[in-house]
Amino acid sequence: MKAFVTGAAGFIGSNVVDRLLEQGHSVTGIDNLSSGHPKFLEGARTSPRFRFIKADLMSKKTLERIVPRETNWVFHFAANADVRHGLKHPYRDLEQNTLATFNLLEAMRKLRVRNIVFSSTGSIYGESTMFPTPEDAPFPIQTSLYGASKLAAEGLISAYVEGFQFKALIFRFVSILGERYSHGHVFDFMKLLKRNPKVLPVLGNGKQTKSYLYIQDCVDAIFRAIKSRWPKPIQIINLGTHEHVTVNESIDVICEELGVAPRRRYAGGDRGWIGDSPFIFLDCRKMLRTGWKPRVNIRDAVRRTVNYLQSNPWLLSARN
Amino acid sequence: MKAFVTGAAGFIGSNVVDRLLEQGHSVTGIDNLSSGHPKFLEGARTSPRFRFIKADLMSKKTLERIVPRETNWVFHFAANADVRHGLKHPYRDLEQNTLATFNLLEAMRKLRVRNIVFSSTGSIYGESTMFPTPEDAPFPIQTSLYGASKLAAEGLISAYVEGFQFKALIFRFVSILGERYSHGHVFDFMKLLKRNPKVLPVLGNGKQTKSYLYIQDCVDAIFRAIKSRWPKPIQIINLGTHEHVTVNESIDVICEELGVAPRRRYAGGDRGWIGDSPFIFLDCRKMLRTGWKPRVNIRDAVRRTVNYLQSNPWLLSARN
Repeated sequence: MKAFVTGAAGFIGSNVVDRLLEQGHSVTGIDNLSSGHPKFLEGARTSPRFRFIKADLMSKKTLERIVPRETNWVFHFAANADVRHGLKHPYRDLEQNTLATFNLLEAMRKLRVRNIVFSSTGSIYGESTMFPTPEDAPFPIQTSLYGASKLAAEGLISAYVEGFQFKALIFRFVSILGERYSHGHVFDFMKLLKRNPKVLPVLGNGKQTKSYLYIQDCVDAIFRAIKSRWPKPIQIINLGTHEHVTVNESIDVICEELGVAPRRRYAGGDRGWIGDSPFIFLDCRKMLRTGWKPRVNIRDAVRRTVNYLQSNPWLLSARN
Repeated sequence: MKAFVTGAAGFIGSNVVDRLLEQGHSVTGIDNLSSGHPKFLEGARTSPRFRFIKADLMSKKTLERIVPRETNWVFHFAANADVRHGLKHPYRDLEQNTLATFNLLEAMRKLRVRNIVFSSTGSIYGESTMFPTPEDAPFPIQTSLYGASKLAAEGLISAYVEGFQFKALIFRFVSILGERYSHGHVFDFMKLLKRNPKVLPVLGNGKQTKSYLYIQDCVDAIFRAIKSRWPKPIQIINLGTHEHVTVNESIDVICEELGVAPRRRYAGGDRGWIGDSPFIFLDCRKMLRTGWKPRVNIRDAVRRTVNYLQSNPWLLSARN
């Protein structure tokens, strides 16, 4: 297939690029390198079937020029993934998650490219009242600008499916862990422990409970879903595991791997920050019915993430 | 109170302005007059407590200058309400419903104005599987750019309530009928019948079934909700009646009022247009529990609308 990947130099994007190339596909990847790392594409760049373009989704004209005609699937992973600091710059999520998606959809429409994979998020369930949370949970109320901006993007994509005969697979991810992970709680804790291995500041009370998924399991699921038959041209699919861990349990694994035993200093409260969901746990039966199954459990995924970051210390010291 | 009304020269906005002035409040109304009618504000303009400013929500700088400090409630009714033609200009809904709302929220945040009433829509339930549809119906999939843009605006408002201590009443309206109605199926049918009273083209099969609400009942509900005590600073409230009618039944009433008996020429299909919901019927128990009750039934609301448009023929010939 001919694939077009946005956020190609990011955590999930670059792993999808590698998988596409492994499978023999042709890939055009774009990234504005605002949070992506060119290093993640070092392997991909050795393939003659890969083309990288530094470009920003906010430029419509550029997009219309660079999305190859005859593209079979667009993988849209470019996003502002900084969930926590949304309130500091309220326009950023709207711009980078909603408007960027609109620009991409418009370029696709003009070029008659109609299949899209989109990385949405379990954050759009806000503070769900149903656990595990299924895709058709009670209509939630948004609690973060990040969730709101991803929901808005989902809505746009859905309307393009209905109105312009697009086909879409929208994945609502839990947090992803593993190789090339470069953002999130494991990252933050490792950075803090590097500075001071004796005291670890923890947002909230450490009891926030979340589900995580290992990157290769995530990529497996995406490709399995593309190959599956679905009754409708739009599918919204939760992607996580049937496990969850507390922040404290995550810290246990991280500290064990690093061989440190810091005192934990809790900020208090049952949320890490305003708009944080104290419990994220998705019902993934829809995806499981395709035959997909995650192979790495959460603790091992945390371990792999720690080991990856230890072998790639440049990431921990990168601007972020 | 000090009120700020967007879309003040529109159907719902101008009726809310009048009610606010009747109750003795001070009102600043803005409208870009792209679809609003200055005539709707003729009464309001005679009040010394009313100030009208022609302004567009897309200008952030203007907004920050004109929203009065100490505003108690912002009534945000400005919108692109052209549900049917969203696919002809995909950016319009996003701009006028989502981005305009963002600009307004940002101006409010900067000016420390924090209470907002927002007109959302039953269209965001897409093709619901639950009737009557409650506010916490299963998480719907969007079918129109209009619905998607209003859902995005709801999400933004909700995130501002969580993140910036706003207070919001979000109303998901059915279609509203009555005095100053200037857009929608009664309007379209009357225009068509004026041109040719013998043949009436009907979109779909005429069996699309919708609920409607009379404008004064709608305004009553908004003010009742403002005065009610709610357990949370964000409330999403369906607003409609416990009745519904088919397009054919609506046509019966219109023709009866006009004294015509056209042959109906159906376009066919169970939807009026792509993204049209063949059945809209909202569960309004949440609003009913405040003690509010609609006083005018749908058939009478259609009649009043026909009579209003007959007495205001300038509206039917206005550009639209």
